[in-house]
Amino acid sequence: MADEEQHPKLGLGTGRIEAFSDGVFAIAITLLVLDLTVPAGSGDDLLERFLDQWPSFLAYIVSFAIVGAAWLTHSVMTQYLARIDSTFARINLLLLLVVSLLPFPTRLLAEYIRDEEAVRVAVTILGLNYLMIVLIMWALWRYARGRDLVRPDADEREVAELTSRLTPGLAGYVVFIVIGLFVPIVAVIGFLVVALMLLVPIGGD
Amino acid sequence: MADEEQHPKLGLGTGRIEAFSDGVFAIAITLLVLDLTVPAGSGDDLLERFLDQWPSFLAYIVSFAIVGAAWLTHSVMTQYLARIDSTFARINLLLLLVVSLLPFPTRLLAEYIRDEEAVRVAVTILGLNYLMIVLIMWALWRYARGRDLVRPDADEREVAELTSRLTPGLAGYVVFIVIGLFVPIVAVIGFLVVALMLLVPIGGD
Amino acid sequence: MADEEQHPKLGLGTGRIEAFSDGVFAIAITLLVLDLTVPAGSGDDLLERFLDQWPSFLAYIVSFAIVGAAWLTHSVMTQYLARIDSTFARINLLLLLVVSLLPFPTRLLAEYIRDEEAVRVAVTILGLNYLMIVLIMWALWRYARGRDLVRPDADEREVAELTSRLTPGLAGYVVFIVIGLFVPIVAVIGFLVVALMLLVPIGGD
Amino acid sequence: MADEEQHPKLGLGTGRIEAFSDGVFAIAITLLVLDLTVPAGSGDDLLERFLDQWPSFLAYIVSFAIVGAAWLTHSVMTQYLARIDSTFARINLLLLLVVSLLPFPTRLLAEYIRDEEAVRVAVTILGLNYLMIVLIMWALWRYARGRDLVRPDADEREVAELTSRLTPGLAGYVVFIVIGLFVPIVAVIGFLVVALMLLVPIGGD
Repeated sequence: MADEEQHPKLGLGTGRIEAFSDGVFAIAITLLVLDLTVPAGSGDDLLERFLDQWPSFLAYIVSFAIVGAAWLTHSVMTQYLARIDSTFARINLLLLLVVSLLPFPTRLLAEYIRDEEAVRVAVTILGLNYLMIVLIMWALWRYARGRDLVRPDADEREVAELTSRLTPGLAGYVVFIVIGLFVPIVAVIGFLVVALMLLVPIGGD
Repeated sequence: MADEEQHPKLGLGTGRIEAFSDGVFAIAITLLVLDLTVPAGSGDDLLERFLDQWPSFLAYIVSFAIVGAAWLTHSVMTQYLARIDSTFARINLLLLLVVSLLPFPTRLLAEYIRDEEAVRVAVTILGLNYLMIVLIMWALWRYARGRDLVRPDADEREVAELTSRLTPGLAGYVVFIVIGLFVPIVAVIGFLVVALMLLVPIGGD
Repeated sequence: MADEEQHPKLGLGTGRIEAFSDGVFAIAITLLVLDLTVPAGSGDDLLERFLDQWPSFLAYIVSFAIVGAAWLTHSVMTQYLARIDSTFARINLLLLLVVSLLPFPTRLLAEYIRDEEAVRVAVTILGLNYLMIVLIMWALWRYARGRDLVRPDADEREVAELTSRLTPGLAGYVVFIVIGLFVPIVAVIGFLVVALMLLVPIGGD
Repeated sequence: MADEEQHPKLGLGTGRIEAFSDGVFAIAITLLVLDLTVPAGSGDDLLERFLDQWPSFLAYIVSFAIVGAAWLTHSVMTQYLARIDSTFARINLLLLLVVSLLPFPTRLLAEYIRDEEAVRVAVTILGLNYLMIVLIMWALWRYARGRDLVRPDADEREVAELTSRLTPGLAGYVVFIVIGLFVPIVAVIGFLVVALMLLVPIGGD
């Protein structure tokens, strides 16, 4: 609202970009639960069947962490922005596309984690999806800095820190995707580690 | 909130219309992922089965683009508005009805894209859904302009541009629905092109 | 935010009640689409099978209208409020409980509309769900007026109009639930009419 | 928005934490409805089959109450906060993880409530999920108080009351999880009672 007054020519309110993005992040992160199931008729040994589902839970936690990290980075990012423009809004839509896609490869991994061959494919697809999320987020941030959308009073050190965190995040996903072709389970753990790294506080507050 | 002070007689806050609309747009766009599946027991050749699903991904991307475009247009539209009235709120509900319907024909297309006869029906239904979205958006905008809901200080050129974009959008969907009766796949690509056209920035900022 | 300053003792921000309610309304209204399906393997005669699904579409539209009307009434209601208290928040949670329940009886009706016996049960359950929504909304409004939560500057006539609309809404659902025991389809149409009546603008703006 | 001005060094807006949390709470609470079903082909005796589903409805109501209580407590909590920091945001993500997990054990309980052995496992898993929600909420509040995030002008008595409510809530879930190993149905009722207790107004307004 306040935004409109300041940038009357802007074709888009930052408030609605944030609200819509928050909505998509929140829904994508919550839809992940639909992939958790225990096979029907597990009554006889429900506990064992439940514990048997650990790969689903692992996939759930990794994808939850990556969406959580993406949301958090997105929040920090938009907070450093003085304004947004139309191109930013479109790159943002692309980010939401790959974020809302995530429940699909997550389900794929959970389903095929016990299949020695298929799991390589599933891990690669999931890793590529994670990579695309971080890549587009990195592009979004690069675009914002290049077009001077960042607030002039933003802490220079923190702005640099956000940049310097996204880059190794990208590298991390590339490395673990390659590793996943050989030892898939290590890649899954690696994906989680990279996501947690993206979750470490910025600016040390 | 601020709105209530300015228009104490208005039966409805613009803030909640935006919040509710953002919610429905965000959920509809995210539910599309539930239609993506790989047939159970695809372990033996998961990569091939996955790539075989390209029609689902195409349908996913086209519908994502149309909902994204609808949301963006809706954001720009409400930003140009000084106030809304009750009729606007009702037409808006109608818009949300057809937007939230979209995951259904999207799934239909994904399911029947390989069936030479059924795909014509599926493409027509999907195209009609897209057409309804653009049509109601066009009606909403026409209503807002006719009832002087647009902010007096809005850039006249941009207001005209929004209008002049929705009209060919309408025409585009009609043309591709007709084409879809003969060459369905061309229609699907056409739907995507029209959606992307609606996503081109307004006002060139 | 502004709220906190004004009512520092209030244990709950109106902003978050609205945001959470908008979220639940938006999700409930959008989840309705998951109940729309065309039986697998309908390729041979997709159009006919699709048109055969009209009861699902009817149920979809009726439930969409009732959630839309509930959301609109809720928006108007909270806009007339100067503040809310804890009991209001709890009655509001009860309202959200019956709203978010709605996709279930909607699916039930869609599934059994062709079964002469079962459809009576399904229509009654759906009608009771609608009735509970309007009843709790009516109780919420009554509570707000009784506890002087309404803004002193609210238009007296509009406040009375909101009350005088909810009461016949209640009566309408009771009547059509009874009718549904004998002629279910008439009841479904009746439910829609009552929902549309709740959607007619207040204050004639 | 206003927040940014006040705490220019804060890496995260409180507004977006609230919006994202509200989204996740709203979606988790609404997804619970997807677990309610009546077995296909129940046409002959729909009413009986419907009433037979009471365990699903009970599980639905208990989980709805716990998410509702968690949301309400979260709202009250953030309202008492002057600011948040990065660690708070991360503990909050952990809270959302266990909240969005809830539809899974709820479904589990609904499915196995009639199986004398399996129900013990299902009730224990559900109880542990509830316990984790209250535990993380308790940790979040403890952290906020320890780091002086609470508003200096907050009513001391109410702040203490929030603390003194979460602690017996924790104890309650531990007790009923243990009871659930012997008499599962009593535990389910107990879970509901604890959730309702968390819903009792704070500060008696």
